[in-house]
Amino acid sequence: IDINPLKITPQGRVLAVDALVVTRSDQLDRQAAAFTPVAPEELGLFFYPKTIAFVGASSHFGKWGHMLYSLTRSGGYRGDTYLVNRRGGTIAGQHVYKSVREIPGPVDLAVVTVPAAGVLPLIPELAEKGIRRTVLITSGFGETGPEGKALEKQLVQAAGDAGILIIGPNTMGICNPHIDLYCTGSMVRPRAGSTAVVAQSGNMGTQLLAFAEKQGIGIRAFCGSGNEAMITIEDYIDAFETDPLTRIVMLYVESIKDGRRFFEGARRVGRKKPIVLLKGGRSRAGFRAAASHTGALATDSGVFDAVCRQAGIVQVDHPMDLLDLSAAFSSLPLPASGRTAIMTLGGGWGVVTADLCDRYGLTVPRLSEDLVRTFDRLLPDYWSRSNPVDIVGEQDPLIPLTVMEELMKWDGCDAVINLGIMGRGHLLNRLVESVRQVDPTCPEDFLRQITGMMTDFERQYLEHIVSLMERYRKPVFGVSLLSDEADRTVYPADGDNFKGVFYPTPERAVKALAKMVEYARFLDR
Amino acid sequence: IDINPLKITPQGRVLAVDALVVTRSDQLDRQAAAFTPVAPEELGLFFYPKTIAFVGASSHFGKWGHMLYSLTRSGGYRGDTYLVNRRGGTIAGQHVYKSVREIPGPVDLAVVTVPAAGVLPLIPELAEKGIRRTVLITSGFGETGPEGKALEKQLVQAAGDAGILIIGPNTMGICNPHIDLYCTGSMVRPRAGSTAVVAQSGNMGTQLLAFAEKQGIGIRAFCGSGNEAMITIEDYIDAFETDPLTRIVMLYVESIKDGRRFFEGARRVGRKKPIVLLKGGRSRAGFRAAASHTGALATDSGVFDAVCRQAGIVQVDHPMDLLDLSAAFSSLPLPASGRTAIMTLGGGWGVVTADLCDRYGLTVPRLSEDLVRTFDRLLPDYWSRSNPVDIVGEQDPLIPLTVMEELMKWDGCDAVINLGIMGRGHLLNRLVESVRQVDPTCPEDFLRQITGMMTDFERQYLEHIVSLMERYRKPVFGVSLLSDEADRTVYPADGDNFKGVFYPTPERAVKALAKMVEYARFLDR
Repeated sequence: IDINPLKITPQGRVLAVDALVVTRSDQLDRQAAAFTPVAPEELGLFFYPKTIAFVGASSHFGKWGHMLYSLTRSGGYRGDTYLVNRRGGTIAGQHVYKSVREIPGPVDLAVVTVPAAGVLPLIPELAEKGIRRTVLITSGFGETGPEGKALEKQLVQAAGDAGILIIGPNTMGICNPHIDLYCTGSMVRPRAGSTAVVAQSGNMGTQLLAFAEKQGIGIRAFCGSGNEAMITIEDYIDAFETDPLTRIVMLYVESIKDGRRFFEGARRVGRKKPIVLLKGGRSRAGFRAAASHTGALATDSGVFDAVCRQAGIVQVDHPMDLLDLSAAFSSLPLPASGRTAIMTLGGGWGVVTADLCDRYGLTVPRLSEDLVRTFDRLLPDYWSRSNPVDIVGEQDPLIPLTVMEELMKWDGCDAVINLGIMGRGHLLNRLVESVRQVDPTCPEDFLRQITGMMTDFERQYLEHIVSLMERYRKPVFGVSLLSDEADRTVYPADGDNFKGVFYPTPERAVKALAKMVEYARFLDR
Repeated sequence: IDINPLKITPQGRVLAVDALVVTRSDQLDRQAAAFTPVAPEELGLFFYPKTIAFVGASSHFGKWGHMLYSLTRSGGYRGDTYLVNRRGGTIAGQHVYKSVREIPGPVDLAVVTVPAAGVLPLIPELAEKGIRRTVLITSGFGETGPEGKALEKQLVQAAGDAGILIIGPNTMGICNPHIDLYCTGSMVRPRAGSTAVVAQSGNMGTQLLAFAEKQGIGIRAFCGSGNEAMITIEDYIDAFETDPLTRIVMLYVESIKDGRRFFEGARRVGRKKPIVLLKGGRSRAGFRAAASHTGALATDSGVFDAVCRQAGIVQVDHPMDLLDLSAAFSSLPLPASGRTAIMTLGGGWGVVTADLCDRYGLTVPRLSEDLVRTFDRLLPDYWSRSNPVDIVGEQDPLIPLTVMEELMKWDGCDAVINLGIMGRGHLLNRLVESVRQVDPTCPEDFLRQITGMMTDFERQYLEHIVSLMERYRKPVFGVSLLSDEADRTVYPADGDNFKGVFYPTPERAVKALAKMVEYARFLDR
């Protein structure tokens, strides 16, 4: 591996971003292959097909050619779909065309699952039918070794000549929840939203979508970019810049083909939309694994980190951090800086959260004297008089609402973390259930009323913090107590730009806030 | 704060553990108060009461005096319970005694919720009735300031003179799932198991129990130690040493009253049973918050960390780490060292896990040539030939079983992380659901058979890894794909010492393994 570490200054400034492209002598041929940038409009059309042909359709449960069709149709896709297989016949009660040429109407997108050897011969047929976009699921190309690489090269040449663009090969598929298009190899159904996701690994992509679905994070579109034979991460970045529905970009990256273009694209996009990124293959073993599964060249981590810092890319270490940041960026206003107020429903939880803020570079400022006086009027004698503000034991539902508003108003903080307001309803429901069993004298309508009140309160509380965020432009990071919906983090509120974000643990709230502050500081530079 | 940093050597060795007791001039009186060690048998009796009197019982929903009784009874406690309130009458259809003196039979435990001012006058009555153990929920003592401190001191004096032991005051309660005793202020119902939990904060304790319940982690017993007026964390540690049902100790600690005793106790216990610990109040703001909510003195973090290192205490930064470690220690054999084999159902997930291993100090060794040859016979031509071993795309259910066994046998690794075997059933069920909607030609009994097979396979896989752990004494850390039970981590298997542990993300598996290795190295010292 030929990497010149001198290309990074001691301050981590990158002098030569071409260093991003790691060169190994046996793979120089690959590097030499020029990647023609793909126009954003061209790329965008992949995600809005009016008709899809499934080429390599199968009647066998569990095969890609059966799975993708089933998952796409059951996902609610409203366009026309055609099944194509050399053998013809019917699959799932539908007519099977022997070739795309036989399909009567126009076809916007081919989703191809035929074996690797059958892909190259398909190109003329696709061209003849006028199909200009192909999602090539099939593996057995560049990722398998020299022969596969040669085949991939031939394919790119043929497709390029025929004016056909290919996502993949070796991709898990794509989705666009905005038109209910879920065309991936696993049944994951995130809601429509503003986070665009590209993953240079299919199973990582699936996991990210599965987490997004559970957490209620809205997805703009997803692409497993596979081997990136024709369309690279750099192309996606350019496309996200102009796509009005993309507000956050989430990337899982193992390697970069054109370092300079990646850097320049990310730097441009990163000023407009946060890019959160997990880099795979940082360690020696990870690097080897990355090289084996997509055949791509891994990228030096030092150079990569420097590029990210300069481009304002928010790098994370853990997959879950990508989701947590996506929830935060898509739902909350940016904090001006890292001064954090904490409102807690109990001591220890607040203590630990203050410690975590310190650990992740946030400050937990002392309350102003004015604020202490205000809370003196509101809270019992023995209240903590410090940040975290502990409102434990207060039954009056107005108290958390008022304390929250005062903290949001306070010019001594840039963000508020609130611990244990949401999720109290779930605890209360459990208590009601217990009382129902044990205390026959407790009137049933009273118990029902109580549960209803708490549900109302949680809704009211959510709307309150969302409107406070609107007014004061500071983020509120929630941490649930117990929750019915274990993994739900995003809670939409009606008619507002912002949403409630509630994590199950304080560490996730603190880490997300700290990364948001990092991004805000980048924008200020 | 008078802390002498010179008491720690540059290697972090503690020369004088008394330094743990931070002295502040205004609170020297507190320090001077001698804490009489509590005998383990005495402490143990708190958790096995045959009868409980709820003193300060209330008929009002939401009051502690109503909540604790309801939760204890609905939790399945099989002993007798008595309600006590000066006003008499009935509550929940039960007779209310005006004093404990009126209760006909013997009473093992008083759970007291009367206001602070009423606690001292209770002592003679409790003594007269022969009640020797009290869980004092009531707050308004040492945590509220000088007056409360004075009251607490009087109380300790009176209780000591009367031969009464008090847990608390200002405690959230206790539980012992082994006898279905759930006497805490929130309805949390973890299963019975081997992790003993003590928290110097009620709401932190509740959260830990709630997480334990969700994750399926078995709890030996729980105590919110409150202000620790008579029974301190040091007493609990001594008791855990001799309790045969305690195999792991989980502590949330904000302050230590007797540094030397804590250190010596932990060092002794830590060799027999892992102690996992989260220290609250490490940061300046956390310290202030800790001081305000229990009135305790915070402890210097540098000294504390050195003590933990020497005593073999496994310290963590995040609350969830406590649970993840508890799941690991209670279910898996200890790894000899940190050489980690990874088996994955897909590339990117494996890459990221290898990176995380590197980050958390584990090594991901290259496979031996023998092992490569073995897998060459098993896996398709293009398999990764490296660690992580990627078995994606293999439909044959025997392959993961065999690969896992070969890795466990391999003397080049000390632990195996497996990504994405468990949870495949959930994905498959979703696929079956889709196919049912889309493909009327797919026979219903075939679909039903498939789901059943996967359920069987997951059960078989679980039993397989548990028996391999038994045979090879290496831990297997699982990471689920999608899961129905979002937070479940521990999966019991029949008739074995070990259990399956499956985390929802690779970071949680890697962090738990790394901490286990840290503990194993301590034991080797």
